[in-house]
Amino acid sequence: MTTQIERIDVTPRMSKIVRHENIVYLCGQTAKGAAAGDVVHQTHEVLSRVDTLLAKAGSDRSRILTAMIFLRNIRDFAAMNEVWESWVPAGAAPARTTVQAHLASEELLVEVTITATIS
Amino acid sequence: MTTQIERIDVTPRMSKIVRHENIVYLCGQTAKGAAAGDVVHQTHEVLSRVDTLLAKAGSDRSRILTAMIFLRNIRDFAAMNEVWESWVPAGAAPARTTVQAHLASEELLVEVTITATIS
Amino acid sequence: MTTQIERIDVTPRMSKIVRHENIVYLCGQTAKGAAAGDVVHQTHEVLSRVDTLLAKAGSDRSRILTAMIFLRNIRDFAAMNEVWESWVPAGAAPARTTVQAHLASEELLVEVTITATIS
Repeated sequence: MTTQIERIDVTPRMSKIVRHENIVYLCGQTAKGAAAGDVVHQTHEVLSRVDTLLAKAGSDRSRILTAMIFLRNIRDFAAMNEVWESWVPAGAAPARTTVQAHLASEELLVEVTITATIS
Repeated sequence: MTTQIERIDVTPRMSKIVRHENIVYLCGQTAKGAAAGDVVHQTHEVLSRVDTLLAKAGSDRSRILTAMIFLRNIRDFAAMNEVWESWVPAGAAPARTTVQAHLASEELLVEVTITATIS
Repeated sequence: MTTQIERIDVTPRMSKIVRHENIVYLCGQTAKGAAAGDVVHQTHEVLSRVDTLLAKAGSDRSRILTAMIFLRNIRDFAAMNEVWESWVPAGAAPARTTVQAHLASEELLVEVTITATIS
């Protein structure tokens, strides 16, 4: 049975949000541009983007199922975690995986890919 | 309630296709062998494999939910994107994440992991 | 419609298990600590952890949909595969993707992220 896919903020490359049934898939979120700042600043910005996209999708940070986190430098693990843990609602942490990877441009230090369910 | 999982092209290591309810999961797709060619050639081959597997699974490239792309060299980002964008149907781009990673063998330049829903 | 999310083994950072409808999401599994051993030893330990978590979630290794595997050294591919293939039940291999990535600490050689469906 064909089911409906809803795509939001669509470019020829990707949709920022894909919704199918009650699951929301976000594209990988990074901080913006050349003045992206250190990993603490970038993690704050990335998670703020996640909040905005989840709201647009009818979800929120308490409804996240999985998070895949890529760090440009795994030595930023503790600094990223501190921002992350202050952002995640108590008792609502997702299943998470974090590894090191170079991202689309050299100044990007963290990328987060989220799946969630609608609120 | 136990639900049915359908596995297609199964080896002891992996299934090329796993279907559960109306979701299709493909294994990571790469180009074949030592003469795999440059990233443009490899991206074409990978996406052609995705088409074939999605057809086998009762889906197609307009029904893709998520794409995880690993590039051997992130400097191939623009070249890969050009092939990708010409392949994605208008208005049907998935949620996508792209990072750099070394793949299973040295000559492989791009790997794409897809989830989709049946048509 | 809001659906129920069940989280098991929850910390402020992540849940080891997230269940939503009939899908189980595990956090990335690694071997423990500084004496983690070689990749064969670590893969055995990781897959044993997966067994334990899947049992806790009401699933088992025959119900795995996807596996994302990160290897610290892609040259460990064959050694990891041997352990993996002896663990996967005949005919029940998941859709799998394997790439190289540095993990959260230097001694960790393999990380596995699993989604499954309940038994």
